[in-house]
Amino acid sequence: MTNPVLVEVLRGAIVESAHRGAVAVFDGDGKPVWEIGDTAKPVFPRSAVKAIQALPLVETGAADAYGFGDRELALACASHSGEPAHVELAQAMLAKAGLDKSALECGAHWPSSHDATIALARAGNSPNPLHNNCSGKHSGFLCTCVHAGIAHQGYVKAGHAFQEMVRDAMQAVTGAAHDANDRAIDGCSIPTYAVPLKSFALGFARMATGRGFGLERAKAAKRLLSACMAEPFLVAGTGKADVALMQAAPGRIFVKTGAEGVYCAALPELGLGIALKCDDGAGRAAEVMIAAVLAKLLGADEALAANLLEQANPPIESRIGAKVGALRPTAALS
Amino acid sequence: MTNPVLVEVLRGAIVESAHRGAVAVFDGDGKPVWEIGDTAKPVFPRSAVKAIQALPLVETGAADAYGFGDRELALACASHSGEPAHVELAQAMLAKAGLDKSALECGAHWPSSHDATIALARAGNSPNPLHNNCSGKHSGFLCTCVHAGIAHQGYVKAGHAFQEMVRDAMQAVTGAAHDANDRAIDGCSIPTYAVPLKSFALGFARMATGRGFGLERAKAAKRLLSACMAEPFLVAGTGKADVALMQAAPGRIFVKTGAEGVYCAALPELGLGIALKCDDGAGRAAEVMIAAVLAKLLGADEALAANLLEQANPPIESRIGAKVGALRPTAALS
Repeated sequence: MTNPVLVEVLRGAIVESAHRGAVAVFDGDGKPVWEIGDTAKPVFPRSAVKAIQALPLVETGAADAYGFGDRELALACASHSGEPAHVELAQAMLAKAGLDKSALECGAHWPSSHDATIALARAGNSPNPLHNNCSGKHSGFLCTCVHAGIAHQGYVKAGHAFQEMVRDAMQAVTGAAHDANDRAIDGCSIPTYAVPLKSFALGFARMATGRGFGLERAKAAKRLLSACMAEPFLVAGTGKADVALMQAAPGRIFVKTGAEGVYCAALPELGLGIALKCDDGAGRAAEVMIAAVLAKLLGADEALAANLLEQANPPIESRIGAKVGALRPTAALS
Repeated sequence: MTNPVLVEVLRGAIVESAHRGAVAVFDGDGKPVWEIGDTAKPVFPRSAVKAIQALPLVETGAADAYGFGDRELALACASHSGEPAHVELAQAMLAKAGLDKSALECGAHWPSSHDATIALARAGNSPNPLHNNCSGKHSGFLCTCVHAGIAHQGYVKAGHAFQEMVRDAMQAVTGAAHDANDRAIDGCSIPTYAVPLKSFALGFARMATGRGFGLERAKAAKRLLSACMAEPFLVAGTGKADVALMQAAPGRIFVKTGAEGVYCAALPELGLGIALKCDDGAGRAAEVMIAAVLAKLLGADEALAANLLEQANPPIESRIGAKVGALRPTAALS
C-alpha cells in the first residue's frame, strides 16, 4: 500500500515538497489505538530504540554498581549532539568501568551540533569516538560488559554475547522475532533489525506500563524512560526536537528519534506507545509527525496541545532570517 | 497522480527508505522525449535555473565589460561550497563593479563544505555573505545592475527592475508565465516561481541548442553552459555531485542542482534538456535520479554510462567507513 502524505513543506503559499509515512499507536496489551498507513511493514528502528537496548545496563545491575543515576541512564539512551556535557559524561561512565574512549567501537564524527563543531574546530581539536552521537549508548554497553564479565572486544558485532543480550531484550519487548535475515548494520556499527513498525509501538507501550513484563524488567523500563524525561538535554542536545517535545510536559512525554525518519514515543499517563516512520527518511518530517501525533493524543490538555502543534508547524527561514515557508502536518494527522 | 518510487535506500539487503519523483526530458522544439510521473505539476526550480538567471549578465554586456571568462560565468551559475577559491572569485567579481561584500543581500551562512567550515573556524573566522552558496550568482546580479545603470539596492526584491529582467528571461526561456501568485522567496532572498516541471526541461533544451532564441540569446546561453562545463568545480565544490557528473564527460553534460530535490541538466550533443524533482525534497535522491537519467540517455557511450551508473548507486557507510548500504535507482529509471 502507498502511505499517505503526512507532512507538507510550504514555500510561500505553495506546497513545495511532501512526505509520506506510517504511524502506529498501541496500548500495552497490543491493542491498536490509531494506525495510519502500513504499520505492518518492517522498518529499521535505528536509534529510536536505544531505551530498549539499555535494559541490560539496568537489569544486569551494572547501572547500580557504577552509581548511575538519571543523567547517565539518559545518556545511555541518547543520540546526543556531541556538546561538552555529553562528551564528558560518556567519558566519566567509561571511567567507572575502568575504560576510556579507546574501548569505543562506534567510530568518530564531528558533533551533530553545529555550534559544538565550530567550538571544537576553534579550539584546534578534532572529534574522537566520545563525540559520536551514540557514545553514551556505547559507554552503557561497555559498562554492562565489564560488570557482567563479558569480554568487551567486538561488542558491536552480531553474535557477540552482549549483542545477543540486546537482541533478546528487543525481541521480548517488541514481541517480534529479530532474525539474521532482518539484520543490517547501523551507523555506529551495531546490528539493527527491520521488524514491523507496530511492534515498536507495542514495545514502548510496554516500556511505559510494564504490561507483559516481569517485575524487574518493568522497573528497569520505567527507570530508563523516567531518566530520559528527567534529563532530556542529555538524550539529544541544544535545539533538538526531542528536548523541546519532552520539555513541553516534563515527565509525561518520552520521545526518541532514529535515523531515516523514525520516532518512537511513550505516554505513560495514557499507557500508549507510538512508532512512526517517514517513508523517505526525512528527520524534518518525522519531527512534524511526532509533534502532531502527540498533540492529538494529548488534546485534552489544551495548552500542551497548542505547544505541540506549534512544534508541528515549524517555520522555514531564508538566510537573512525572514520566514519564507513552513512545514505542516496534513489532515491525516489531526 | 502519485509519482513512482525512483530511488531506494538500502541498508544491508533491505529497502529502508524510498523516494518518489518526476522526470521530464524534452527537446528544444518542446517535444517530450521521456516523462516519468507528473511533469505538469508546478515546482520551484530554486538554484537549478541559475544559468538562466545569469543571461542578463551576458546579454547586457556586463560580463564582457568586466572581462569575465569561464571562471566568473561558472561562479555566477553556481551553488558553491564556500571554499576559498569560490569566496575569492566572488569578491573579485564584485570589485570589478566597484563593490564589495556589503552590497550582497543574500545573507551569510557557514560554507556548505564541511572542510571549509572547519578551516574557517580553525582560523578564528566566521562566515560572511561571500560564503553564501549563492554569492557568485548575487555578484553577477550586482555587476549587471552596475553595468546597466540600475540602482542595485534591493536587487533581490520582486518588482525591482533587475528582478524583472530575470523574470523576463525565465519566462522567455521556459515558455511558462511567472505570475505573482506562483511566487515565493528563495533561501538567498530572491523570488522563485513555481511553474510546470517540464517547462524547465524545455528551457534547458533551448539553452543548449538555442532553438527558439534570437542570435544573441542563443550565444549567451551557450556561453554560460560552456563556462559551467569548463569550470565544474566553481559551479559546486569539492566532492559535489555536480562536479563529478560534469567531469564524467567534459563539455558534454551540463547539470545544476537546486534545493528541495531539483535537478536541471542539458545534453548539447542530443539537443535535450532535463528537469526532475524528488517529491520529498531530498538531494541525495535527486543526485541518484539525475545520474541514472544521464546514464540512460548517454547509454551509447558504454564507458560513460558505466561511470554515471556508478554515481547512481552510491554506498552508505558507517562511522568507521564500512559499507552498510547503498542508494539505487528503481527500474522506472532504466
